[in-house]
Amino acid sequence: MSHRAVRNVARASPPTPSFELEGHVFYLFTQILGRRNLALAEKLKPLGVSVPQWRILAVLQERAGCTMNELADVTTIERTTLTRALDRMVETGLAARRGDAQDRRSVRLSLTAAGKDLFRRVLPRVVEQNERAMRGFSAGERADFRAELHRMVRNLDPDYDHRNATWLAGRAAITDNRRNRREAS
Amino acid sequence: MSHRAVRNVARASPPTPSFELEGHVFYLFTQILGRRNLALAEKLKPLGVSVPQWRILAVLQERAGCTMNELADVTTIERTTLTRALDRMVETGLAARRGDAQDRRSVRLSLTAAGKDLFRRVLPRVVEQNERAMRGFSAGERADFRAELHRMVRNLDPDYDHRNATWLAGRAAITDNRRNRREAS
Repeated sequence: MSHRAVRNVARASPPTPSFELEGHVFYLFTQILGRRNLALAEKLKPLGVSVPQWRILAVLQERAGCTMNELADVTTIERTTLTRALDRMVETGLAARRGDAQDRRSVRLSLTAAGKDLFRRVLPRVVEQNERAMRGFSAGERADFRAELHRMVRNLDPDYDHRNATWLAGRAAITDNRRNRREAS
Repeated sequence: MSHRAVRNVARASPPTPSFELEGHVFYLFTQILGRRNLALAEKLKPLGVSVPQWRILAVLQERAGCTMNELADVTTIERTTLTRALDRMVETGLAARRGDAQDRRSVRLSLTAAGKDLFRRVLPRVVEQNERAMRGFSAGERADFRAELHRMVRNLDPDYDHRNATWLAGRAAITDNRRNRREAS
């Protein structure tokens, strides 16, 4: 086979044509999250809260006493941005750092009463945006959809369940109770 | 009712307990996209490509001749970051701007031959990450999942189809052809 023929064969089997943005799950994810975050940022502006701050509020609300490593892990916010955002929340009295000042790994993070209050005021606006995104999805579709997202989280992060075992055990109990109540009612 | 009772009633119906990160679709979205982007960034580093640059490559590959507004819209990359990333791609000979220098809105963007070549070299690494995320999903589950993501895009962005009509018409034809071929084979 000539050099030219080899090059033509290589060109005849490019991966390019099999790619379509609209059929690309992560294109759709990026669109959805991008649109939702833009809309949410607008809704949170009057409360002086940014989307990354909302993510910090939500994690600290549910995982009071977590470390900076855990917060970084669960928010997936880049470390410099996260430290800066948290510093501001501590300065403005929304969050508190407690623990050994010598060992930053043992510093525990939590919301102050003002932080918890802000979380409660922000939450309805977040729920409103989520409802907008999920409009037309039945309860069953939502449950299936969430289950598929859970599978994707575990595919991408096989250590997720192990790393979050304590937290997830508590959550699962709450979810089960709620499901039982719903089914009983 | 005593003050205490009023406070207890207020406490009995706060929005807080109904919120659970693990049941929150956008928490899961953020986890998935965050993990996938971290992993992808690692895989693309040897090629000197960042995740935002990949998104620009992918959009320009499919929508050659688009404007800066369209690129910003489809990549959902913040404008300053996008301009900076595109400037670098033009400097390094991956992308080209063509058109009326006086009217930036009419400037058309495209990939150079080097840009298209880079896209082809990056794509397999992206596909690999996507496959990792979707492992265990059957073809039917993938199709349903994508359809649900499409619904969410339209829920959040009701103008999406109208704004992207020309592009989507071309895409739909390609997708239909491929589906017909698959069904026929």
